[in-house]
Amino acid sequence: MTAQLEKTYQQLCDASREATMIGRIQHLLEWDEHTKMPQAGAAYRADQMAFLAGLVHQKQTAPEIGEWLDELVDSEFTADPKSDIGANVYHLKRDYEKQTKLPQDLVEQLTRACAVGQQVWIEARKADDFEQFRPKLEEIVRLKREQAAALGYEATPYDPLLDEYEPGETTVNVARVLSELRDALVPLVQAIADSSQRPDVSILARKYSIDVQEAFGEQVAEQIGFDFGAGRLDVTAHPFCTGLGPGDVRITTRYDEHAFSDAFFSILHEVGHGLYDQGLPREHYGLPIGEDVSLGIHESQSRLWENQVGRSHAFWEHFYGAAQQAFPDALGDVAVSTFYGAINDVRPSLIRVEADEVTYNLHILIRFELEQALIEDRLQVADLPGAWNEKYERFLGITPPNDAEGVLQDVHWSAGLFGYFPTYALGNLYAAQFFDQAKEDLPILEADIRRGDFSALLSWLRANIHQHGRRYTPAELVERVTSSPLQHDALMSHLNEKYGEIYGL
Amino acid sequence: MTAQLEKTYQQLCDASREATMIGRIQHLLEWDEHTKMPQAGAAYRADQMAFLAGLVHQKQTAPEIGEWLDELVDSEFTADPKSDIGANVYHLKRDYEKQTKLPQDLVEQLTRACAVGQQVWIEARKADDFEQFRPKLEEIVRLKREQAAALGYEATPYDPLLDEYEPGETTVNVARVLSELRDALVPLVQAIADSSQRPDVSILARKYSIDVQEAFGEQVAEQIGFDFGAGRLDVTAHPFCTGLGPGDVRITTRYDEHAFSDAFFSILHEVGHGLYDQGLPREHYGLPIGEDVSLGIHESQSRLWENQVGRSHAFWEHFYGAAQQAFPDALGDVAVSTFYGAINDVRPSLIRVEADEVTYNLHILIRFELEQALIEDRLQVADLPGAWNEKYERFLGITPPNDAEGVLQDVHWSAGLFGYFPTYALGNLYAAQFFDQAKEDLPILEADIRRGDFSALLSWLRANIHQHGRRYTPAELVERVTSSPLQHDALMSHLNEKYGEIYGL
Repeated sequence: MTAQLEKTYQQLCDASREATMIGRIQHLLEWDEHTKMPQAGAAYRADQMAFLAGLVHQKQTAPEIGEWLDELVDSEFTADPKSDIGANVYHLKRDYEKQTKLPQDLVEQLTRACAVGQQVWIEARKADDFEQFRPKLEEIVRLKREQAAALGYEATPYDPLLDEYEPGETTVNVARVLSELRDALVPLVQAIADSSQRPDVSILARKYSIDVQEAFGEQVAEQIGFDFGAGRLDVTAHPFCTGLGPGDVRITTRYDEHAFSDAFFSILHEVGHGLYDQGLPREHYGLPIGEDVSLGIHESQSRLWENQVGRSHAFWEHFYGAAQQAFPDALGDVAVSTFYGAINDVRPSLIRVEADEVTYNLHILIRFELEQALIEDRLQVADLPGAWNEKYERFLGITPPNDAEGVLQDVHWSAGLFGYFPTYALGNLYAAQFFDQAKEDLPILEADIRRGDFSALLSWLRANIHQHGRRYTPAELVERVTSSPLQHDALMSHLNEKYGEIYGL
Repeated sequence: MTAQLEKTYQQLCDASREATMIGRIQHLLEWDEHTKMPQAGAAYRADQMAFLAGLVHQKQTAPEIGEWLDELVDSEFTADPKSDIGANVYHLKRDYEKQTKLPQDLVEQLTRACAVGQQVWIEARKADDFEQFRPKLEEIVRLKREQAAALGYEATPYDPLLDEYEPGETTVNVARVLSELRDALVPLVQAIADSSQRPDVSILARKYSIDVQEAFGEQVAEQIGFDFGAGRLDVTAHPFCTGLGPGDVRITTRYDEHAFSDAFFSILHEVGHGLYDQGLPREHYGLPIGEDVSLGIHESQSRLWENQVGRSHAFWEHFYGAAQQAFPDALGDVAVSTFYGAINDVRPSLIRVEADEVTYNLHILIRFELEQALIEDRLQVADLPGAWNEKYERFLGITPPNDAEGVLQDVHWSAGLFGYFPTYALGNLYAAQFFDQAKEDLPILEADIRRGDFSALLSWLRANIHQHGRRYTPAELVERVTSSPLQHDALMSHLNEKYGEIYGL
């Protein structure tokens, strides 16, 4: 590399690292807001967040970045898009073009509409009144369509929105895989509903003292591999994971004394996210190849630990003794098989975030189909509640009694997050594919889990997924790791096998 | 005010608010570092702190601020230096001139020397080896002298350094008051040492469970008036108070199961700081007149609640029953008078932060005299340990057995904080003067405290001190509130009366 190009590349990297570093300060402000900040601090915190967002945007759209990129993209040093330099320049150029394609006034309108939108949504949900929310949602859909137009697309305006969260993925491909998944899921859900087996879920609603839940969750998180010397676990209203720096990854959960599995599996879920963040290549921190691949791949890591590992029989063969010791009153008289049934209870329900491993994907599918139709102008916002209820009846056999428990349940649309929902289902699909491959590569995996040794699995994930950062697209990574494209078979085999056994199908 | 000047003033205010807002982000990063951050996050956090410090400096020294100030200072609208506009412009001009007087390379040298200095100091203290620290301290003293020269002074180079923390105060005045204080203190310390009365301090080293200490401390903090809806109490190695925004003031403490009074009185101390921050005028937040007056005045608020209130007999007449209920094993068999004696034990000691209300000021005096001599080049760093020990022998009658417990005990000099120590003693002096005035203005004050009602005292502090922000200098404020200049009589009367009684002098 010539000295001049080397210098340009270093300047570009420094700018990327600086923007990331400011972004991580934002993460701290958000983490603190959701876990520690006293209520009266909210207004000032919002000002600080807006200031930092503006600063990041200013750094990311600085004209010199465009000049540096022009200089580098035509050079031979970026010819290999999978080399360090090639991959970094590819992503930085992609981000820069997206940032600069969006007119400043559209960005500001969207920011404002979504900030207000979330407030209006909270009120509308509280009042169970979709009409209160409708005009604001119409405005947000219109602005998201404008955003899609500004970003450009060939097949559908949903493509550039999906691409924000799952780079390189297309609407047509996601639609195909999710409809195949749906066709395979609906009969399974029906068969489970028709089964005479019913797990006793009441044991999970016994009294589980919060202190002990916390200690037990931390113990499991540590044993799985979460590094508490470079992370924390705190309490929040809505569990999340956030990266504050190369040595600082924080996860959160919420506790309910009478709902053991809520906090426990949300800890496992966030630990999965956290292990991914802790496994990203530190030497590239602040550069694209030091970042995660996509929301879908991130979700695959959380779901793999939560479901494939945490809801398996092998996992509880190891941990159930400790759980009984921790909660003697709640679990002392419960057999592990009863407990295993309870944590794998499947039943159609109205609320996505409370859904089981099987029906969850149908909740996502409904949202994906609806938001795609909204963005493609095939569905009007005024007709959304009806369309929502119709799909719940068709796919899950239940109709929401009101909009609060129906179309108004999720924050996403009020926050402008169109194209985000499908990544939850992609995460489930990727997780099943990755776990199948891990089992093939590690014949002793199940035995490992049975004796509480997760080191080989974690090393496998580090080597195959984490260490690559964003070098590959989601599709490339899945193909590379599993020698197969994104497909529904792995997840369906997992679900059919596991739930066939539990429900005697 | 003309439209043009009004616009200029608003721009200046916006710039001040923005710099403050970034400074408050720094406060969050520091708070998190000391209370929550996992160890592995330290290096990245340091980078973020350096970035924000640079950003604040850049905002504070922007050339347009100088232009706006030039425009405003000559106008009739700033003629009254105690009006909102006059006071804000006065302080912003003062700050701007100080910031721009310092050559950039001196600022950077100082920043680097002090960052390294603190590391070297930690090692030197651990090794009990002053020689390890000497060269770095010599460099820091030299740079502080350069800083003083750049800022300018008439009487002594110590003046501009002291002025950083106690604006408008002079070395000669502080030296006079502190030497008067010393002359009055030394005989009192001697008389106490000669007394046959000895409080039984062992009761404070019984077992006080940390959970209960925390709950008891929070209960007292709340009853005193600390607003937990706009603040928090957390655990840290070195207790502090920090303001994160107009509705977010955080205090910290540390707990030792066998040292009740350590955590309790540090909570009261930090609550005193916190009440001041919570009482500053919100409508001026981010402007000078929305800020605290000085370190000394801030310390007066913490010391007043810690000592004048919290170590008084009246205070424990109210709270001792609750304390006995909270700690039945430790205090059940202890009379309130015994407890009162124990929390007011006076004895010459080596370590400043562990010193009692009486001897504390002698620790400060020693540091003040030594650092003044260093800055005035009357004392060489190489001679500092000897001078330190000689003064401890002279004022406190004890000689440190080693430098770790002597000259190496405080972080301040390694961090370049010359001129900071006297504000601790000024805080004690102001606190006594303010409390005397409060007693005069509120004849029922002691009765109020005896029944646990602190509202009148807090209102008095709000009205007389907090609400004025930085409108007055420390000297003006003290004169305004107490109709008397800074003096040692109020503190000495308080100490003589209280300890005369306890020790039967």
